[in-house]
Amino acid sequence: MNLIIEQGNSSAKVAIFANGQLKSSFVFKHFDVSVVRSLFEEFDLDQGIYSTVVDVDPEIASFLKGKLRFFLLLDENVKLPVKVSYKTPQTLGKDRLAAVVGANYLQPGMDLLVIDAGTAITYEVIEASGTFVGGNISPGMSTRFKALHAFTKKLPLLNEPEDVLFIGNDTESAIQSGVVNGIIFEMDGYIDSLRIKYPSLLVFLTGGHSFYFARKLKNANFADINLVFTGLNRILEYNVEN
Amino acid sequence: MNLIIEQGNSSAKVAIFANGQLKSSFVFKHFDVSVVRSLFEEFDLDQGIYSTVVDVDPEIASFLKGKLRFFLLLDENVKLPVKVSYKTPQTLGKDRLAAVVGANYLQPGMDLLVIDAGTAITYEVIEASGTFVGGNISPGMSTRFKALHAFTKKLPLLNEPEDVLFIGNDTESAIQSGVVNGIIFEMDGYIDSLRIKYPSLLVFLTGGHSFYFARKLKNANFADINLVFTGLNRILEYNVEN
Repeated sequence: MNLIIEQGNSSAKVAIFANGQLKSSFVFKHFDVSVVRSLFEEFDLDQGIYSTVVDVDPEIASFLKGKLRFFLLLDENVKLPVKVSYKTPQTLGKDRLAAVVGANYLQPGMDLLVIDAGTAITYEVIEASGTFVGGNISPGMSTRFKALHAFTKKLPLLNEPEDVLFIGNDTESAIQSGVVNGIIFEMDGYIDSLRIKYPSLLVFLTGGHSFYFARKLKNANFADINLVFTGLNRILEYNVEN
Repeated sequence: MNLIIEQGNSSAKVAIFANGQLKSSFVFKHFDVSVVRSLFEEFDLDQGIYSTVVDVDPEIASFLKGKLRFFLLLDENVKLPVKVSYKTPQTLGKDRLAAVVGANYLQPGMDLLVIDAGTAITYEVIEASGTFVGGNISPGMSTRFKALHAFTKKLPLLNEPEDVLFIGNDTESAIQSGVVNGIIFEMDGYIDSLRIKYPSLLVFLTGGHSFYFARKLKNANFADINLVFTGLNRILEYNVEN
């Protein structure tokens, strides 16, 4: 079985794959080597990949290296099943890279936009040739709510409502409509602009807020919460094969 | 001469109006009663309005009350030359209200969208009848750059460049393109959506980043850095007259 570890900004996500299929997944707010050890008690793990957008935990890395038949620490030297024409691959977020590989694996030979709506919102463009041409980063939904409260003197800290007005009529609805509609305009703006260059563009939504936005967007094709896992598993299998 | 004080989140802005014309304007990072006193040494001031989005400085308010023939502290009880159909006028930002009054004074009888691009970006809709129907609030450009750095673990603190790529190809350009293009999509999104309901909508851009975005938007009509001043001066004159 394959162990997939994705350490993000605010939590660690873990998945177990067998024969290309996701079997289980977990989210840990607190994540250290004792959590990893407990996973080995529960699952028969022989291959694994460890991806992190924060610093590598050396205890976790050395534990995995000792226990697994094949262990991959995802860094800029790992072989990838896509071409990366990014000027600074060493600073390219591992989660962004994995989402791109996952989308290209699920829809090979297609022009793709991957929108990952988490702490940050990332927009990644992969051409039909399998080349990752670049991407953009903007603040995520919760980050925008936090920023309005933290960086102004009078605005309250809010969360997204189920539905928003188009134009707010009190402070609360003005902030909620402003944050949510702003992100919808942003996402639809990328999709509409990219479809001029890539008429058959497919759009993947992933990340914690993917379902929230999927039902509000004019034209996203797939909401797939496991796209990063799929990509990390694909990178792992690709490196086992080669 | 009219003294206009607009205390914002990060600085105080002061304007001097005579006969409906802006004569001078100033920005103060540090603003207290001694600054106000020095303005009286330089200008022959007899009417004034004090608007603040943070707490009222009682020393400034009592100094102005003593010195001016007519003094107005802008709060929710002040008479306005527009109708406000906002559910919570007491929490409506004074700068938002003033921008609305300024736009309606400059373009009476028109449907208007006022975009104020500062620490926050506010979108306000005023109908041709002179009714302020509501508005939205989202994080401003600098706030978005700060938020990406503050609320993620690895992203650097950046500023807006003169020009951005459509899609970034390294971390720096990904963040810069992501923040700036996101705001452009957001602004154009509001304009395009509102023009369906209000075909002859006029769009005002104001605030510190108004000129930055004015040249990047598809269809804004006016970039007016002094719109809030114009509105505050109009509110002052309206209350002197009535």
